[in-house]
Amino acid sequence: MKKQQNILIIGAGLCGSLLALRLGQRGYNVAVYEMRPDLRKTDISAGRSINLAFSDRGNKAMKLVGLEAQVNALCIPMNGRMIHDKEGHTFLSNYSGRDQEYINSISRGGLNALLLDEAEKHANVTIHFNKKCKSVDFEKTTAFFQDYTTKEEFIEDADCIIATDGAGSALRKSYYLGKKFLFSFSQNYLTHGYKELSILPTETGDYKAYKNALHIWPRGDFMVIALPNLDGSFTVTLFLSYDEGAYNFNNLTTPEMVTEFFEKEFPDALALMPNLVADFFENPTAPLGTVKCSPWHYKGNTLLMGDSAHAIVPFYGQGMNASFEDVVEFDAVLDQQLEDWEATFTAYEKTRKKDTDAIADLAIDNFHEMKAHTANPIFQEKRKLEMAFEKAFPKDYSSKYSLVTFNEHIGYREAMLRGRAQDKAILNMLADHEIDTTHLDDKTHLKALLDKVKTATNNILDDDNVAKTIG
Amino acid sequence: MKKQQNILIIGAGLCGSLLALRLGQRGYNVAVYEMRPDLRKTDISAGRSINLAFSDRGNKAMKLVGLEAQVNALCIPMNGRMIHDKEGHTFLSNYSGRDQEYINSISRGGLNALLLDEAEKHANVTIHFNKKCKSVDFEKTTAFFQDYTTKEEFIEDADCIIATDGAGSALRKSYYLGKKFLFSFSQNYLTHGYKELSILPTETGDYKAYKNALHIWPRGDFMVIALPNLDGSFTVTLFLSYDEGAYNFNNLTTPEMVTEFFEKEFPDALALMPNLVADFFENPTAPLGTVKCSPWHYKGNTLLMGDSAHAIVPFYGQGMNASFEDVVEFDAVLDQQLEDWEATFTAYEKTRKKDTDAIADLAIDNFHEMKAHTANPIFQEKRKLEMAFEKAFPKDYSSKYSLVTFNEHIGYREAMLRGRAQDKAILNMLADHEIDTTHLDDKTHLKALLDKVKTATNNILDDDNVAKTIG
Repeated sequence: MKKQQNILIIGAGLCGSLLALRLGQRGYNVAVYEMRPDLRKTDISAGRSINLAFSDRGNKAMKLVGLEAQVNALCIPMNGRMIHDKEGHTFLSNYSGRDQEYINSISRGGLNALLLDEAEKHANVTIHFNKKCKSVDFEKTTAFFQDYTTKEEFIEDADCIIATDGAGSALRKSYYLGKKFLFSFSQNYLTHGYKELSILPTETGDYKAYKNALHIWPRGDFMVIALPNLDGSFTVTLFLSYDEGAYNFNNLTTPEMVTEFFEKEFPDALALMPNLVADFFENPTAPLGTVKCSPWHYKGNTLLMGDSAHAIVPFYGQGMNASFEDVVEFDAVLDQQLEDWEATFTAYEKTRKKDTDAIADLAIDNFHEMKAHTANPIFQEKRKLEMAFEKAFPKDYSSKYSLVTFNEHIGYREAMLRGRAQDKAILNMLADHEIDTTHLDDKTHLKALLDKVKTATNNILDDDNVAKTIG
Repeated sequence: MKKQQNILIIGAGLCGSLLALRLGQRGYNVAVYEMRPDLRKTDISAGRSINLAFSDRGNKAMKLVGLEAQVNALCIPMNGRMIHDKEGHTFLSNYSGRDQEYINSISRGGLNALLLDEAEKHANVTIHFNKKCKSVDFEKTTAFFQDYTTKEEFIEDADCIIATDGAGSALRKSYYLGKKFLFSFSQNYLTHGYKELSILPTETGDYKAYKNALHIWPRGDFMVIALPNLDGSFTVTLFLSYDEGAYNFNNLTTPEMVTEFFEKEFPDALALMPNLVADFFENPTAPLGTVKCSPWHYKGNTLLMGDSAHAIVPFYGQGMNASFEDVVEFDAVLDQQLEDWEATFTAYEKTRKKDTDAIADLAIDNFHEMKAHTANPIFQEKRKLEMAFEKAFPKDYSSKYSLVTFNEHIGYREAMLRGRAQDKAILNMLADHEIDTTHLDDKTHLKALLDKVKTATNNILDDDNVAKTIG
């Protein structure tokens, strides 16, 4: 392919700005159109910036574009989950038994601004704000835009168009409504929605709760979580059913009911949130949806990437990381120098889709794990055992969480299959009292348990494989 | 609820005409609007009528409306799969070890005509043909129609609207495009499409192949099947990839290539099909899609039923049976006399959706089973063992196929979970040489094998359950 091809990117969010930067580094002519104003010039109130979990797969992309150190400066390490019970007791459950493995809380806005700054340093990259894409003519490789300010409508063409315009993608909508090819598509909503709240810093700017953890208040059918921000605040999120249970988004309609709900279920969180009622009624309630589709591309003309191709629920902290990994995978396909864009897009989807399908399913698993299983004694015993394995035999074992989050050299699908099999093996052995977890400091005993888990895991994988290939 | 409520049904296909009949029997005022002309008055060429598999779940509905004997007269029993290999060797694999368990080939048109006749015998049921539903205002409970002949447009209202308008449902489209509530929705296409062909009767009107079987030519990545019609013909269907493999729908563009493909892969079928090339180029190639969605209803105003709620691929022969079972399940909810339509629709979806989700997944499983696994020696050994179990211990064992097809007292979901676990248990024991199938006529030995399979099955179900509820 000729290097000086013109690439149009729709959307300058995290995925689009990273893609623009990388394609700019590779020498393409890149034009990015973003519907929102430039977030670097818009007043975003401090302390309420939305934060995200940033981990190894995302960092792999930062290494690729040479921004690892700059991004690291924006990160707050979270070493584990801080579980809060109803009585306010807390319990730290590490994400890994290896000290160097942790996830980070990072500001979406700060990271996006950095990526935009870096992309714009390339003369061959231009970014246009306030330009909303209304539709894409994927047969003509043109996109139809409207300027937010002037309302002027215009059409842009390119050698190829890549849509990184998120869960509500205009290109995906054009694929669906166009009916020009068989387009498999799903949008699936959880019964729960979410609402953002906040724990503000102390008057001296300190954190009101332990800084280096992802806080969880698991209550079975619903939960609250909190992630730290650099300014001393925490962004808090309530995940709750719209219409089921004693308290739900539909019936929490008065300040008294909201306060009563938090007094009963989250008293220690409420004590940190004098601003609860104001936050609750000011902030919107948003749905939690998963989007999958296929094909992602139309010939060599257009391609979906990031959330536009695979929006997922937030419970594995992998949404941004998966989108960043998209760019790494796409970059690796570009390295193959295939004959044209169609071959490139086809190869990219073939290698990538199985993994984004897997992280979508894993994220839903983790919804149930976080709100319910983290409070289950057998689940906690499993985590204790896994932490011991990872600590004593760091090269021989990785939990499902570690495989997904810290093993960026394997894909999500492989992590899912092996991780689920391990969980199944350990949980069943614990439920059947086939594992004695009382002497995990005895390394010989622990090694025997590890061998037992590995054997059971491999049997599960083998049995599943036989059933799948013959059954 | 008042009995004299007005119910509007969109679509007079198999599900809509059965629903109209049943609701007519229950005393409701029923108005049915169908976009096609009256199939009883339209000339349908004999010998090419599309046939379907009719089995116990569908028959349960016929019993409910008192039509069991009349439908039975339209049926051709198929006792098993007749497997054809490339050399033309055939092998009959029964559907069950119990003689009274078989499926039937039935004409779609004949059955639909019967249901329309019976529905129209009720003075409180009216059926309007050539009226195409364009959209539904589910907040106002009105449907918007266009007359095919006069092009006149009109609106009808009712106390509630039930859409039985198939995979391309106008009501479902209105739910999706309306964006008035969170609508989970998926449409997923297989990589394969299908094309109908035919084996015509002999000059004396006889069947050119064994009448009482579903014929399969499994070739791994593609297949041909044939079902008998009452007039001595077979309706033949080719399932083939659109674009993968040496031969596919995209590259079979000349009579020579089509003939070459059949000569190479299906020589014994070709010998029965002098009309192959004409059929191939006259008949359309159609996609194979699965549709799932939720919720099925909007308040008490509107409800999706049959394919409009859950279109499935044809490989389990359960599409019509599932839609008929919808009517049985809906009828049972009506018997509960809940307070209003909203409570009725909510209860119906809650009990029914898990089962239609399951048959959708089972139907895709069976695509792979039919085109590939039926030719696998271990799979064939499993079937041999299961036939022996069902014959020797008819009350103690049912294969997955039997659970799905002949055990209409349990739901599809239960059939799927138990059936998949059994398959996994048996296939793994066969693959690991833990089962000796050489002396299946020894009843003591066979009973020991059955116990072994049951224990392994229960272990699988228990392990899955632990992993699901804690993991």
